[in-house]
Amino acid sequence: MYKLCTHICDRFMHSLPQLLELIHSFSGKSTFPPHPRELYEPCDYILTLGGKRLRPALLLMGYELFRDDVEQALPAAWAVELFHNFTLMHDDIMDAAPLRRGQPTVHTRWSTTTGILSGDVMLIYAYRFLAKIGEPEIVLNLIQTFNRVATEVCEGQQLDLNFETRADVSIPEYIRMIELKTAVLLGGALQMGAICAGASQADAEHLYHFGRLAGIAFQIQDDLLDTYGDPAKFGKQVGGDILQNKKTLLVLKTLEVAPEAERLRLAQWMKTGIENSDEKVAAVRAIFDRNGIPNLIATEQQRFQNEAFNHIGAVNLPEERKAVLRKTVEELLKREY
Amino acid sequence: MYKLCTHICDRFMHSLPQLLELIHSFSGKSTFPPHPRELYEPCDYILTLGGKRLRPALLLMGYELFRDDVEQALPAAWAVELFHNFTLMHDDIMDAAPLRRGQPTVHTRWSTTTGILSGDVMLIYAYRFLAKIGEPEIVLNLIQTFNRVATEVCEGQQLDLNFETRADVSIPEYIRMIELKTAVLLGGALQMGAICAGASQADAEHLYHFGRLAGIAFQIQDDLLDTYGDPAKFGKQVGGDILQNKKTLLVLKTLEVAPEAERLRLAQWMKTGIENSDEKVAAVRAIFDRNGIPNLIATEQQRFQNEAFNHIGAVNLPEERKAVLRKTVEELLKREY
Repeated sequence: MYKLCTHICDRFMHSLPQLLELIHSFSGKSTFPPHPRELYEPCDYILTLGGKRLRPALLLMGYELFRDDVEQALPAAWAVELFHNFTLMHDDIMDAAPLRRGQPTVHTRWSTTTGILSGDVMLIYAYRFLAKIGEPEIVLNLIQTFNRVATEVCEGQQLDLNFETRADVSIPEYIRMIELKTAVLLGGALQMGAICAGASQADAEHLYHFGRLAGIAFQIQDDLLDTYGDPAKFGKQVGGDILQNKKTLLVLKTLEVAPEAERLRLAQWMKTGIENSDEKVAAVRAIFDRNGIPNLIATEQQRFQNEAFNHIGAVNLPEERKAVLRKTVEELLKREY
Repeated sequence: MYKLCTHICDRFMHSLPQLLELIHSFSGKSTFPPHPRELYEPCDYILTLGGKRLRPALLLMGYELFRDDVEQALPAAWAVELFHNFTLMHDDIMDAAPLRRGQPTVHTRWSTTTGILSGDVMLIYAYRFLAKIGEPEIVLNLIQTFNRVATEVCEGQQLDLNFETRADVSIPEYIRMIELKTAVLLGGALQMGAICAGASQADAEHLYHFGRLAGIAFQIQDDLLDTYGDPAKFGKQVGGDILQNKKTLLVLKTLEVAPEAERLRLAQWMKTGIENSDEKVAAVRAIFDRNGIPNLIATEQQRFQNEAFNHIGAVNLPEERKAVLRKTVEELLKREY
């Protein structure tokens, strides 16, 4: 099934859809035992709600840069997906979110108790899948990387919670929050793939920074798209962040660069209810526009993106070997606004 | 500080208080970073509420059976204590418990969100401390054992939650629940100590079963003491289980062996409020007494205890080497009722 050959440039590389298919068929083999049903059913449930499986795909791509037997890395890839779903299950409780991907969240469908305990066991199962990699040196290296990233994801969630009640969040603090909460896991997935494949520490770290910086660029773009996205293409309601008075990067940038009158105007709108939501979105967007905020944010986003691609460039492999990974991340960052 | 010598029988063994002192001074070196304070302060808080530190002490005893440099095992011992405190933090939310060791629980003092997220990061820190053991083969073995035990503890908590709403819990099901929820971690701590010391798999497994079976015996005794303990010696209110209508082993045994009239009488009392708590405790205790329940339970407890000590006997070491561990567990099981 897998073409192996000695000449590196000819090696078979899986496309993203092929990797997603491998992940899909691996995840089909039951992850959890049937009993106690009340504990494991919610774990299966959240996994069947879908999601892009981006993190395990990145792990496999990180692996396939260096080795051809990508199926060897599937348990580690699945561990990262289990971890991600554990964070979703617990974050949904903390955010009191009723829906995830249009379906009831675990704590809504069952209970907070279920959401806590099933989330806990999913985190433990992430470590069980990591241990399946088998080779002790690699497992230790994987677990150390995973521990660091998992800790940072919790810290990012805490910063996000703190920011809800703070009026003085700076742009570097905001960037650090999205880095910890989201970006390090993308970088960590690539790094763990490289570790599984026995890559050099330098290459593994370049991949980590590539994923981390691209992750930050992606999150910044998300803030832009929420206000400036094409309603036909953007998955969520355009203007949602404005209506929820979220302190996005657009808001923080305005508070940083706009004259006082504009800052006061924005602050006023952020205290206003949403009797007329179209009016509010238009008015806030006009403040951003008048102060050149979208361009400033897009420049910031481009800076992270450029830095990210410098790191993939520095990975010590022929460029054609990096084509699938490069293309996948480029596509992700090519969403229009 | 540590006396090392080649003649096994002369080797220096730490007493329980000495081991507790080692754990205390290790835990004094800060486990968590200072930031984000909102995340880590509750972790420090629950650890300062005290507790017997029984699990890390067992791990060190398991280690010291085989090796003298017990301080090498301190990170693994601390990992087990962190895991235990993670379960307490999350269980307190699930049980809506306002107090732990006389102090406000984390979710009461802060919030449910804090209890969830700080608990999560404590679990991750348990794995961080396991990874500090360093030797890859041993870390892999430790993590596999820890993963199994941690999964079982979650399963035990789920069974306990299920039992609250079930009227048909059998005695084997109840024993299985206390085994998973409490006993496997005691056994797991001993086994992990043996693994750290590079003991044979057979010895490590005998120690696991010793701890597991002694843990079951201890929990059975806890049920007995709650109703029959000496009020001067028992830490909690004697009769507390009766007043809370808990389905303890005493209740389950009565429902198994007593004639129908007695079973109905017990069921009636378990539906009764506690206008007169002394009367209720006395009446339920009289049902237990008339049906010889305390003796039946004590026999069951003794059976597990005997089985436990068979396993410590089977560990391939001179008896004097096992003296501290034996004595510690004997003392634990010598509480009077």
